Amino acid sequence: MKIAVCSGSFDPVTNGHLDIISRGARIFDKVIVAVLINSQKQSLFSVEERVALLEKATAHLPNVQVDSFSGLLVRYMQEKGAHVILRGLRSHADFDYELPIAAANKHLDDQLETLFLLSSPEYAHISSSIVRELGRYGASVAGLVPPAVEEALAQKFAEGQRS
Amino acid sequence: MKIAVCSGSFDPVTNGHLDIISRGARIFDKVIVAVLINSQKQSLFSVEERVALLEKATAHLPNVQVDSFSGLLVRYMQEKGAHVILRGLRSHADFDYELPIAAANKHLDDQLETLFLLSSPEYAHISSSIVRELGRYGASVAGLVPPAVEEALAQKFAEGQRS
Amino acid sequence: MKIAVCSGSFDPVTNGHLDIISRGARIFDKVIVAVLINSQKQSLFSVEERVALLEKATAHLPNVQVDSFSGLLVRYMQEKGAHVILRGLRSHADFDYELPIAAANKHLDDQLETLFLLSSPEYAHISSSIVRELGRYGASVAGLVPPAVEEALAQKFAEGQRS
Amino acid sequence: MKIAVCSGSFDPVTNGHLDIISRGARIFDKVIVAVLINSQKQSLFSVEERVALLEKATAHLPNVQVDSFSGLLVRYMQEKGAHVILRGLRSHADFDYELPIAAANKHLDDQLETLFLLSSPEYAHISSSIVRELGRYGASVAGLVPPAVEEALAQKFAEGQRS
Amino acid sequence: MKIAVCSGSFDPVTNGHLDIISRGARIFDKVIVAVLINSQKQSLFSVEERVALLEKATAHLPNVQVDSFSGLLVRYMQEKGAHVILRGLRSHADFDYELPIAAANKHLDDQLETLFLLSSPEYAHISSSIVRELGRYGASVAGLVPPAVEEALAQKFAEGQRS
Amino acid sequence: MKIAVCSGSFDPVTNGHLDIISRGARIFDKVIVAVLINSQKQSLFSVEERVALLEKATAHLPNVQVDSFSGLLVRYMQEKGAHVILRGLRSHADFDYELPIAAANKHLDDQLETLFLLSSPEYAHISSSIVRELGRYGASVAGLVPPAVEEALAQKFAEGQRS
Repeated sequence: MKIAVCSGSFDPVTNGHLDIISRGARIFDKVIVAVLINSQKQSLFSVEERVALLEKATAHLPNVQVDSFSGLLVRYMQEKGAHVILRGLRSHADFDYELPIAAANKHLDDQLETLFLLSSPEYAHISSSIVRELGRYGASVAGLVPPAVEEALAQKFAEGQRS
Repeated sequence: MKIAVCSGSFDPVTNGHLDIISRGARIFDKVIVAVLINSQKQSLFSVEERVALLEKATAHLPNVQVDSFSGLLVRYMQEKGAHVILRGLRSHADFDYELPIAAANKHLDDQLETLFLLSSPEYAHISSSIVRELGRYGASVAGLVPPAVEEALAQKFAEGQRS
Repeated sequence: MKIAVCSGSFDPVTNGHLDIISRGARIFDKVIVAVLINSQKQSLFSVEERVALLEKATAHLPNVQVDSFSGLLVRYMQEKGAHVILRGLRSHADFDYELPIAAANKHLDDQLETLFLLSSPEYAHISSSIVRELGRYGASVAGLVPPAVEEALAQKFAEGQRS
Repeated sequence: MKIAVCSGSFDPVTNGHLDIISRGARIFDKVIVAVLINSQKQSLFSVEERVALLEKATAHLPNVQVDSFSGLLVRYMQEKGAHVILRGLRSHADFDYELPIAAANKHLDDQLETLFLLSSPEYAHISSSIVRELGRYGASVAGLVPPAVEEALAQKFAEGQRS
Repeated sequence: MKIAVCSGSFDPVTNGHLDIISRGARIFDKVIVAVLINSQKQSLFSVEERVALLEKATAHLPNVQVDSFSGLLVRYMQEKGAHVILRGLRSHADFDYELPIAAANKHLDDQLETLFLLSSPEYAHISSSIVRELGRYGASVAGLVPPAVEEALAQKFAEGQRS
Repeated sequence: MKIAVCSGSFDPVTNGHLDIISRGARIFDKVIVAVLINSQKQSLFSVEERVALLEKATAHLPNVQVDSFSGLLVRYMQEKGAHVILRGLRSHADFDYELPIAAANKHLDDQLETLFLLSSPEYAHISSSIVRELGRYGASVAGLVPPAVEEALAQKFAEGQRS
């Protein structure tokens, strides 16, 4: 069984992430979407919230499983018996960012491969940071994120304004 | 009347910014240079100082107006009746940075267009951050910024050393 | 009156070209779409055919005019009283291709400006050469080109097979 | 069964191609290496020679099969029941080249996915055209191509000099 | 005598840095490796530790000298009578980063030249930040850094866990 | 003695080439400008004309020598006792073009190094092909090429029109 892992911050998951995840789910037997727990990086949504939003957004994809992990991706994959890291490529900036990470992972475990899908054009300009920025100003994120994220963002920033 | 908005931090305005603003002023009926008020980002010059320096530097351009705004650029443009965002492109890094922002603005208001001018070669390597860095060490910024900014930088860092 | 010129081979016009032309037509008073007559480059459609296809495809845009020219773009623009060259940017490769051309045009006439629009994501991967390639194999180009071009392509390659 | 197709000119196959093919063979159930028959492009080796060299170079990979095809890749894949196009990415230039092709293939068949592996650093600067150029001058291509290609190149250019 | 300066954070020195330094040492009469003292940037190793690690790693290169400096590189070079800044280029991202810095240095002293060597492929994906990240998780950095750095990293993070 | 070789087509030499050559002449003891004789590529100026124009343009640089060569650059350098290939970098496109060539040269002779200077901004958009194109239309190339090339271009295309 070919298992691919799609890791990231997913703060929050966007339609760009879902594009890669759902296309990966047609290629591999199982896709594990793994939220990286990074205590050094501030996030808008907690790890639990991010996992819950991903679970809602991928509920229709039977061979997709959502999880979280800390530490090295390579060790997480070894535990899960996964051999493929699945990533989306949106731009040259992504390419320059991904190249040394893929090389470092291969350095740590030569059996791992990083496979890239090119982002679908309509999603190639979406990022979690732009989504958070729009949410902060109460601007519409319809079409950029799944409906559950739209609601969660609205609620998150409504809370912020109350406090 | 075609109104273009040229927004940014302008901390401080450089000859690179002025290149784009003055070329834009020949194309559009009016160019509004709008300093983004961003309370989350530390700046060397205050918003008032940045506006004043821009006003001095663009005093010879009758159809250029300097302003400041906070919040979403799209809303500011709607208020001003402006339809064109004018940006300079210096490099591939700029291209990758601008692409998702232009897409997000179009997502918010389909009537807005972002138009790009390529930076003139002699100004393509100037940035506010390099100007600030040179100023910090008392190095010459002649030719990189308008004279008023040169003086303001010298004064700003002289103040810093006194305190 | 601000006149923009959008020049190119248009062999044939694609929905990517139309995206730039129609967005330009909302910004400028008049957009001249100018087919470059280049006797040194082999083309699939004749200049006359390309002009006719452009005219059909832009018939709904009252301030767009189709023309053809030979020689230097700069001279053509001087004759037409146009000051803006309008170009679409799809990629880094486009950026590297356009930079020296824009610089050369500015070298020849400092009053000319080249303005760039970023291609809409859904059209960013379309090129005339890919359209011709698909046409050659009888593959569908629906959605990539205007309907008249679809027909013209089918007819052109049907002719080719008969001869 | 997941079948990936790795198509190209392979004129001749290099160690860079073999890097991608062998890594792909560990991920997919079967990898078909398909030489594109392109009558419009001059080649150094005939299609038969290229297929033979690929067969020798991949003889140790049981789930790799070598073939040739003409026409659209999409149709070839439909015939073969393959859903994944496997490509190597060496550089930004490759990225710009591959993006519109992947988009065109998806336009023709939405069930197809193009997956990219980043070239291993030691092979990232090898191309068939550089190999041909070195061969033409009798320079060493050891380490750049499999041994059988080394011999074939030497023989090809020896023939050339005799005639 | 041609003196080249290779400046940077070297936090810590990697085999990628050593590749550039040792190749530079074959071209220039003397190469000064200069650790930039930057009080505003947090570092893993102290300036003294970084200098010591560089000295160990370059002990076999008789015309390489290790030093540290603060302030503008241009002034440091003037003091040392050096005219060449030696830099490695790994990627397009490096290119975009280096361009404005080289231009600023030339603006400050027109007699200075920045010369670039392309990173050797096997070192092109190594950076100090990835090395620190691997060290943090106790992952192997063998082959990425010289042996003394390997030990120093292990010790540094062992200390961290004790405290 | 450090000898650098600057090879190319120089069809014709531009101010961009002269920028790199003259800056190189301040760094290296001797710079050999070597016109590549390439019988497979059509050129505007003959090898003899290109050498003569280079000689005029570099007459003021005592340590620059003009020559021509055919075959592999590596072999030419071995004959000349040169160890450094000097190249200008204008853009990302240049970077992608130069990388595999530098790697191939290093593959052939590990003692050779390719060193890059970034083109001065005012010359970064000049290329021989744009100069030829402007010359073909009788447009001004003043400032883009040395005076002798300006005359030679005018004469070349005047000849062309007479015949």
